[in-house]
Amino acid sequence: MNQASPAAHDVLAIGNAIVDVLSHADDDFLDRHGLTKGAMTLVDADRAAALYAAMGPGVEVSGGSAANTAAGIASFGGKAAFIGKVRDDQLGEVFSHDIRAAGVSFASAPAAQGEPTGRCLILVTPDAQRTMQTFLGAGGGLGPEDVDEALVAASRVTYLEGYLWDPPLAKEAFVKAAEIAAGAGRKVALSLSDSFCVDRHRAEFLDLVNNHVHILFANEAEITSLYEAGEFDEALQRVRGHCEIAALTRSEKGSVIVAGGEVHVLDAAPARQVIDTTGAGDLYAAGFLHGYTRGEDPAACGRLGGIAAAEIIGHFGARPETRLSELAAG
Amino acid sequence: MNQASPAAHDVLAIGNAIVDVLSHADDDFLDRHGLTKGAMTLVDADRAAALYAAMGPGVEVSGGSAANTAAGIASFGGKAAFIGKVRDDQLGEVFSHDIRAAGVSFASAPAAQGEPTGRCLILVTPDAQRTMQTFLGAGGGLGPEDVDEALVAASRVTYLEGYLWDPPLAKEAFVKAAEIAAGAGRKVALSLSDSFCVDRHRAEFLDLVNNHVHILFANEAEITSLYEAGEFDEALQRVRGHCEIAALTRSEKGSVIVAGGEVHVLDAAPARQVIDTTGAGDLYAAGFLHGYTRGEDPAACGRLGGIAAAEIIGHFGARPETRLSELAAG
Repeated sequence: MNQASPAAHDVLAIGNAIVDVLSHADDDFLDRHGLTKGAMTLVDADRAAALYAAMGPGVEVSGGSAANTAAGIASFGGKAAFIGKVRDDQLGEVFSHDIRAAGVSFASAPAAQGEPTGRCLILVTPDAQRTMQTFLGAGGGLGPEDVDEALVAASRVTYLEGYLWDPPLAKEAFVKAAEIAAGAGRKVALSLSDSFCVDRHRAEFLDLVNNHVHILFANEAEITSLYEAGEFDEALQRVRGHCEIAALTRSEKGSVIVAGGEVHVLDAAPARQVIDTTGAGDLYAAGFLHGYTRGEDPAACGRLGGIAAAEIIGHFGARPETRLSELAAG
Repeated sequence: MNQASPAAHDVLAIGNAIVDVLSHADDDFLDRHGLTKGAMTLVDADRAAALYAAMGPGVEVSGGSAANTAAGIASFGGKAAFIGKVRDDQLGEVFSHDIRAAGVSFASAPAAQGEPTGRCLILVTPDAQRTMQTFLGAGGGLGPEDVDEALVAASRVTYLEGYLWDPPLAKEAFVKAAEIAAGAGRKVALSLSDSFCVDRHRAEFLDLVNNHVHILFANEAEITSLYEAGEFDEALQRVRGHCEIAALTRSEKGSVIVAGGEVHVLDAAPARQVIDTTGAGDLYAAGFLHGYTRGEDPAACGRLGGIAAAEIIGHFGARPETRLSELAAG
């Protein structure tokens, strides 16, 4: 599945640069504040401030869906780069430090004015589900001018998060990146990110999957939303042929991989404990793409995805705490 | 041991307002950067920036020694207040949110100019020891004008961290607070904070303990440093009579409490696991003072301190993750 041409990076991830603010909450809290459990909702600065005032003590950890994937690739020992926008403020410094310290190449200059660095208020309920309220902040300013043509052309896979369809200019950045990648004989991967996000942008996502995306990542809710399917298998049949590879994750039921004529049904990797499911999809994508850029077969790629997802749900936060290269070797 | 007079707060804690940046590191990293393991070292903005650039991905959690103690009091169900200085920046917002969300009354206004909110780079080695590099930032601006006379007079115990001797004006704040407390028939408690801190300010601390402090908290290294004693027992004999109560912590060896003519030798509470010892002393003080303000006898106070310390070393970060009132009841 690998390409023979030399590449400076295995995976270039493009996404919203976000610092996560994690806090425990119970279901009552979600109800009282009208929050949709398990979903990512975009909020403005005022709503973010009001929710923050109501929630309990937090822990700040760098996040962002595609950024988490990039950190996962680096943890496996792969070469990863990230494009995303922060402000020149304290949370921007935290984000930039953490992604570089994780071994990811991050060259995007912080904005000197405009909105502050984006943050995501994540409420983790006792069932380990996460409910996310995102204030995109500076991340919303990502546009085509931020896509470094040479970087895309020098990366085996350019990976994009579906959340990029929410800010106004980021989709133009995506299309630009996809065209550069295609022109350079590289691959384009997309994560659908969130079923509500798919609802907001269904027609555009269907067009993208048909015309630009080689490797699609989606969970069960997202893929059934994309095709407005009544059940998983219906969506599975629809996605075959729409892109080269679709890796569909199903939480504790494992994952299903469609690659050309092949279909692989893989069990979930055993998780030591389930503390916080934030980042499970992001890290599955990291494992899968790490295998892919190493020329592994689809089932082996899926197994690496499962290993990374099992690590991330075992603790608070969406960046690996154990080196994934060691878990993969074990 | 309790006072009969009514009080708005059980404990008023005064200290440096700090956001901790926790990261894993190995002993080699400490050696390469000339860091003294287990100690708190003050650093300027440049040194903090250089160390941050060299260290791995971090987790940001509100900290500060006395602030941790205040959060612990609230977690036990006591009424706690905190005085400390932040800037009106993102980390200041994080600190203020977290301490209020923990149930602590925090009325200090953020500074509109000057240094940014203070932070402490904490490197946690595989042996769970923490090595701390503190940039005091706005915290260094704490002075007598920040001490609210009515608040001190309305608090059963005013608790101060020894780290306050490092910034230039904070010791004046301490003396002011101690005199108000004494005038109102309240108690003054002091934590020696760090053996290197004791080294820097030994003469002043000895004077304080003799003249202003009713309840002294120190670990073995700190109390032996204070009296320049060759061994623990020598320091123990010296501290008797120097203050009403001395609670001396000895890590896994438990604690020794001197209260008037009584001496209690208590075993450490069983810890489920030892992940990060940051905050162990702060939370011991919280448990002890919670018992004290409830009128418990010295041994019962020490046991509550041990329970809180055992909770805090079982996870990353220096604020409780489990309600201490539940652990105390269990």
